[in-house]
Amino acid sequence: MVKANFADVLMDCARRKQSQLVVGLDPRLDRLPVELRPPDGARTSAAAARAIVTFNCAAMDAVADHAVAVKCQVAFYEELGCEGMRAYAATLQAARDRQLIVIGDVKRGDIASTAAAYASGHLGPAGRDAAPSSDFIADAITVNPYLGSDGVMPFVEAAAANGRGVFALVKTSNPSSVEIQNLESGGLPVYVHVGELVEGWGRPYCGQCGYSLLGAVVAATFPGDLARLRKLMPGTPFLVPGLGAQGARVGDVVGAFDGHGLGAIVNSSRDIIFAWERPPYDEEYGEARWQEAIEAAASDLRARLWAATH
Amino acid sequence: MVKANFADVLMDCARRKQSQLVVGLDPRLDRLPVELRPPDGARTSAAAARAIVTFNCAAMDAVADHAVAVKCQVAFYEELGCEGMRAYAATLQAARDRQLIVIGDVKRGDIASTAAAYASGHLGPAGRDAAPSSDFIADAITVNPYLGSDGVMPFVEAAAANGRGVFALVKTSNPSSVEIQNLESGGLPVYVHVGELVEGWGRPYCGQCGYSLLGAVVAATFPGDLARLRKLMPGTPFLVPGLGAQGARVGDVVGAFDGHGLGAIVNSSRDIIFAWERPPYDEEYGEARWQEAIEAAASDLRARLWAATH
Repeated sequence: MVKANFADVLMDCARRKQSQLVVGLDPRLDRLPVELRPPDGARTSAAAARAIVTFNCAAMDAVADHAVAVKCQVAFYEELGCEGMRAYAATLQAARDRQLIVIGDVKRGDIASTAAAYASGHLGPAGRDAAPSSDFIADAITVNPYLGSDGVMPFVEAAAANGRGVFALVKTSNPSSVEIQNLESGGLPVYVHVGELVEGWGRPYCGQCGYSLLGAVVAATFPGDLARLRKLMPGTPFLVPGLGAQGARVGDVVGAFDGHGLGAIVNSSRDIIFAWERPPYDEEYGEARWQEAIEAAASDLRARLWAATH
Repeated sequence: MVKANFADVLMDCARRKQSQLVVGLDPRLDRLPVELRPPDGARTSAAAARAIVTFNCAAMDAVADHAVAVKCQVAFYEELGCEGMRAYAATLQAARDRQLIVIGDVKRGDIASTAAAYASGHLGPAGRDAAPSSDFIADAITVNPYLGSDGVMPFVEAAAANGRGVFALVKTSNPSSVEIQNLESGGLPVYVHVGELVEGWGRPYCGQCGYSLLGAVVAATFPGDLARLRKLMPGTPFLVPGLGAQGARVGDVVGAFDGHGLGAIVNSSRDIIFAWERPPYDEEYGEARWQEAIEAAASDLRARLWAATH
């Protein structure tokens, strides 16, 4: 059976939900609601992992109607070792149970057969020699392109075989991203070269919507770079981080979208999942009503993004 | 208590064992000795993971006297999901039980607090707000520098706090590494700029041996690049992949070492751990004596590397 192209699935879902919002499930134990946090004397990895899964499920229930996808930053699960990875697997399953598209923010990257092993673990096996199945399978994952096409194409091929997607880092949201990504080569910064490579690698994998299953991570914290890359990469869907806690505003992400308000999804993590800590949700809901605060923050940001791009 | 600098520990071990050899534990289920492979009908992730740990322990017993370190390519464990990560954790513990330095080849990279979460999971917490401990702690790990210093320094700081090490990718062994790493900027390829950044980031973390706890991954498959980087990065220990299956020969790695035969460690994975499949070990040992074949291959390569650099 030929699997649907991930870009088509993603854009259909965006249209249907009128949402370009991705909610990042980056659970930090010390910021969970007190009622969920294991007591100080009992902060084992297992207790922490259980608290995280409980929190994630409640957060997903709150955002399911408002988010086109959720994104799990695997670092916050790996930090807890094996128990954390069990929480990661449980969160992926809970997202599937809620019919939510789930992106594994794993930023993996390696070469050839090693990249294929990662791809098999996170997107499913590309070939017939299927390894025993993994419980880390997400609908899409992020990858690091520093190793070149040998390091990216095994992920793209596994994604294509399984109806899944990939987002390659092109321009990241952090201040020091300029150190390597903005080195100038032939009059163009490295990130533009990387963007052109990604656009080319993804072209054979375009869906009916005109976008490829190979997307790009392009930060909102450099709005000029974002607009420049959008023009250079017309067939590449963007996953845009940097909103909120990292400093970018809704107006900064408008350049990521096409004329139909499609072609990009925008991540917000801490501003949504810890919304009860900040205005106006702290006064309106407070920690006692943290799940309602999460839903309100997701609903508000969804509406602001949609309005700004339509 | 001030922890020993990782570079000092590594160089001391190299001198003591007269070895610069790192054995890569990259277990591929379909290449394990038949006696260890789970039967086709019972190839669950759990069975695969058990077979891998049994194999790794036997391989480590065989190479412990000949290798300065072992390196686990985490992709081959992640491929099996949670069960695979338990096998990764068990392999790290088994390496410690054998007093073997163990490198987690995880090529992680992310920004700021996310990088700190990865670092905490793989190297131990840098600060006092210690998270519940992880069972993925290795003596050193590999990281991807594409995100710049924000993405690398949290790993370096966690390594310094815990007496551990980091190897940042500078020039990788795969053919398509040239696509981004060899873009020319200001008359120099990107990998040279990255090498200079890594040398600078690591300088405050030098041990008594003159090398930093922040090392670099520099491939043997481009011997000219290797020699060039050695000159530019006098305080950075190199982890050199690419020998054997990837095409480089012992003569290609000589340029990675200083005048004392130190400053670099050289990885070989498949050529050692599956030695019974290739000449001369196939005829001399064969699959029935696979563990002896592994020991002979490690012993031979250790001796050839030491002789070529002294």
